[in-house]
Amino acid sequence: MKKGCPYGTHRVIEPKNTLPQPAVKIDNTMEIYDNEILIDVQTLNIDSASFTQIKEEAKGKEEKIKEIMKNIVETRGKHQNPVTGSGGMLIGTVKEIGPALEGKVDLKVGDKIATLVSLSLTPLKIDEILAVRKDIDQVDIKGEAILFESGIYAVLPEDLPENLALSVLDVAGAPAQAAKLVKPGDNVLVIGGAGKSGMLCLYEARKRVGVNGKVICLGYSEESLERAKSADLADVYIKADATNAVEVLEKVKEATNGEMTDITINCVNVPNTEMPSILATKDDGLIYFFSMATNFTKAALGAEGVGKDTTMIMGNGYTKGHAEIALQIMRESKELRKIYEELYA
Amino acid sequence: MKKGCPYGTHRVIEPKNTLPQPAVKIDNTMEIYDNEILIDVQTLNIDSASFTQIKEEAKGKEEKIKEIMKNIVETRGKHQNPVTGSGGMLIGTVKEIGPALEGKVDLKVGDKIATLVSLSLTPLKIDEILAVRKDIDQVDIKGEAILFESGIYAVLPEDLPENLALSVLDVAGAPAQAAKLVKPGDNVLVIGGAGKSGMLCLYEARKRVGVNGKVICLGYSEESLERAKSADLADVYIKADATNAVEVLEKVKEATNGEMTDITINCVNVPNTEMPSILATKDDGLIYFFSMATNFTKAALGAEGVGKDTTMIMGNGYTKGHAEIALQIMRESKELRKIYEELYA
Repeated sequence: MKKGCPYGTHRVIEPKNTLPQPAVKIDNTMEIYDNEILIDVQTLNIDSASFTQIKEEAKGKEEKIKEIMKNIVETRGKHQNPVTGSGGMLIGTVKEIGPALEGKVDLKVGDKIATLVSLSLTPLKIDEILAVRKDIDQVDIKGEAILFESGIYAVLPEDLPENLALSVLDVAGAPAQAAKLVKPGDNVLVIGGAGKSGMLCLYEARKRVGVNGKVICLGYSEESLERAKSADLADVYIKADATNAVEVLEKVKEATNGEMTDITINCVNVPNTEMPSILATKDDGLIYFFSMATNFTKAALGAEGVGKDTTMIMGNGYTKGHAEIALQIMRESKELRKIYEELYA
Repeated sequence: MKKGCPYGTHRVIEPKNTLPQPAVKIDNTMEIYDNEILIDVQTLNIDSASFTQIKEEAKGKEEKIKEIMKNIVETRGKHQNPVTGSGGMLIGTVKEIGPALEGKVDLKVGDKIATLVSLSLTPLKIDEILAVRKDIDQVDIKGEAILFESGIYAVLPEDLPENLALSVLDVAGAPAQAAKLVKPGDNVLVIGGAGKSGMLCLYEARKRVGVNGKVICLGYSEESLERAKSADLADVYIKADATNAVEVLEKVKEATNGEMTDITINCVNVPNTEMPSILATKDDGLIYFFSMATNFTKAALGAEGVGKDTTMIMGNGYTKGHAEIALQIMRESKELRKIYEELYA
């Protein structure tokens, strides 16, 4: 059996010396290297931007959608949309585990898992497309995929519905980072706190700040704030435009009696929220940017422009134990589970 | 005397509810609020991108350059180039200090300072342009400027030439962050280590890692690496293309006996160096992105794609004591001072 690189560079066909994600073509031979996992695929969750593009190209016709998807995988060895560059994730059953992984993974053959690493770097073979669920970007297939040693995954829990688990796993990094960072006594602000990842962050933050801390939920719509209130996720709720630096500064100042926040977690997927995040946070505080709309230079130059010594961390969707932390919230909080089932599952 | 906001929002004319930097027009009346500092300006250091644009628009004619610059300041109340959006910094003498700053600043009237906050948010009035030094982007003027309470500055040292001090202050954030982060025993990699900010980072890192640590300089050209070697800045020198993930991974693996790095500091101003930085760093390591070419999503999705739990910090040009730390290097290291005087001063 051949020895593989942890990052899967051994499967890159072209261009040489790149990683599987930027590569244009990777080897999707379904014979594993010593550090790979073979998966019997059940469902592909195509990235929303990618699936929208495919549906448009196919003018909504199911047979054409199947043809485009098969064509992508035949050409590239992975389901990376050539227009959007994005992938998605998959659900399947473990079929074979490379011997070099023995004792390194908590998996056995037959386990049902979701891969939490993008399809844009995952070797995939589609034998047949069984069903296309156009409204939820899901496609059932007969086929196989390879998970690299560095690839992350979650074993699907038996006590939670599959779609609920998937919607939570999709944003699992955020609450796990909140759980790591928040300390007793902290003032914590979650910008976009009433959204999908924001609510999980509030929940984890509230568990940790204790009686001397304060958890603040900032949201844009009355409706979403009411929803967060119904699950009692925060101590204070602020309705504000997250892009308005002066408004956010004044309202957070009021909510914290002028102290400002120790930790600000930015979960709102709109541009131009860097400066409001910086101004809401104490000089020696910490900002966690989980929003993919974050602009690096706006944050870096913004902090310098107002002379703030704030630590600014770039959101990493992965941290150890993130899947377990996120799934556990659905077991602990009936209220959040109800909201998630209604909105996302 | 009127009370001012620390961030200078009291001087914003339009649009309302913005900060001075994004504002199109700010009030440049040279009568201070209670928390402002009035400066007699000697020299403007125009941002390089901005000055290049102005020179081109003026077709290199000095009188036209003066006219464009005066026009910008008359229209906006600050020297923010409407095409590039950027500013620069200034040197001048403290003329008046607002009473609310008493005991808060280490300044007295008559001190010569450099403002380390951008001209793009600094109220400025130009009475006369005295000299234009086209080759080094500097313009001597007769005029005044305002520093807000949150504005950062450095008192120019008497024992170092002005231009040397300025070139060091320009990148002062990087070595100060290195000084804060590096611990004894760390493996430290500086990508772009032979560049302007990189060399200062290496110097601070080397002071701190001790005999059990290792400082690695990664650079692109043989010439710049030789220069860094001449000042004995690192334990290991690597010649590599910082955008080539596989090459960086392999060479850093070799240099660290497979351990990889505890801290990677990215100082190289070219795109697509996020993934090489991530792969060079240990799972529980830390990456400090000081490069303004850093792409937020490439870093965030890149780390997730390879399942790395690495902490990624966005470079903040300001941290407490950064000017003193950077200037002190020029006093401590004859070799670095010589290199800086030759290249940048």
